Amino acid sequence: MPHIALNTDEPGIRGLLRYRPQTAKPLNELAQVLLFEESTLSRGERELIAAYVSALNQCRFCFSSHAAFAAAQLPEGMALVEQVRADLGAAPVSDKLRALLVIAGAVQESGQKVSEQDVAAAREAGATDLEIHDTVLIAAAFCMYNRYVDGLATIAPDDPAVYATAAERIVTAGYTGAPAEAEHRG
Amino acid sequence: MPHIALNTDEPGIRGLLRYRPQTAKPLNELAQVLLFEESTLSRGERELIAAYVSALNQCRFCFSSHAAFAAAQLPEGMALVEQVRADLGAAPVSDKLRALLVIAGAVQESGQKVSEQDVAAAREAGATDLEIHDTVLIAAAFCMYNRYVDGLATIAPDDPAVYATAAERIVTAGYTGAPAEAEHRG
Repeated sequence: MPHIALNTDEPGIRGLLRYRPQTAKPLNELAQVLLFEESTLSRGERELIAAYVSALNQCRFCFSSHAAFAAAQLPEGMALVEQVRADLGAAPVSDKLRALLVIAGAVQESGQKVSEQDVAAAREAGATDLEIHDTVLIAAAFCMYNRYVDGLATIAPDDPAVYATAAERIVTAGYTGAPAEAEHRG
Repeated sequence: MPHIALNTDEPGIRGLLRYRPQTAKPLNELAQVLLFEESTLSRGERELIAAYVSALNQCRFCFSSHAAFAAAQLPEGMALVEQVRADLGAAPVSDKLRALLVIAGAVQESGQKVSEQDVAAAREAGATDLEIHDTVLIAAAFCMYNRYVDGLATIAPDDPAVYATAAERIVTAGYTGAPAEAEHRG
């Protein structure tokens, strides 16, 4: 049961967004820019970073959600999400995405854990400064969303259909409910 | 030196906000709602929560900034910020604010660390559901801001005058540069 009395029975962050519309607006807009708007990282790759950090933070609602959103937008589907979670070093991702996931994992521990070497490795593998920036901010943002969701003890449904339905909505309409546009990759 | 090439030499989060205006907008708006807009917690109390979490995360730029913003808006000034940082149990704050700072400290570790007992103690001391909600989200948000600032290795100036000047700006104009209104407390 959530620590505070919410005004709906919507699970996870959805009940919190409904409870406090003033904070919901920037929280949704941040997710929209980082995970949905135009980027040289695909939507599936960015959702994979979000899912990976949520797994490290053991946030069941956010992991289940963003794993479903990543799976729906990656050619390799849920199998790749599970491989990255189980063993990042062995998962079949590009060297660039692996290096960015290493940076995201460092950020999950602490900002100070991101080393010159981590950043040099990502750059070596072809990551741009903007991709490194956005990876750090996605990872940092999920250290916020995960703590928000679990710090108020919101409910994480067991039924995978809940997350699959949410994935359909996010893939179509994004995080701010704006009409979907085709994804452009730079 | 920052991990990526920024387009100004502004320190800390300010250089990052300048670098990526699309994410700056929701990041500033979130701080504005949580720390500046109307609330039953005073601006000084909310900045103290932000400073306390930034200290726990050892983020020098964010601690120095929000300690200065708290000091400028608390009757007890910087002495209280330092007392809370040094020994929360002994610091001369209200029982309610102490209980909220305990919740913020739990969130800094992990969302799962916030216990029923922590929340019951805050409620016992007079905290409302909205105050508990906002405390959790302020603490979670600073787990993001701190990681963003340090994960990209931004510069934290040593000169206290830098933070004092920033405090004047924040106290007057808030985080979105909107004209200041008198603070109302509910």
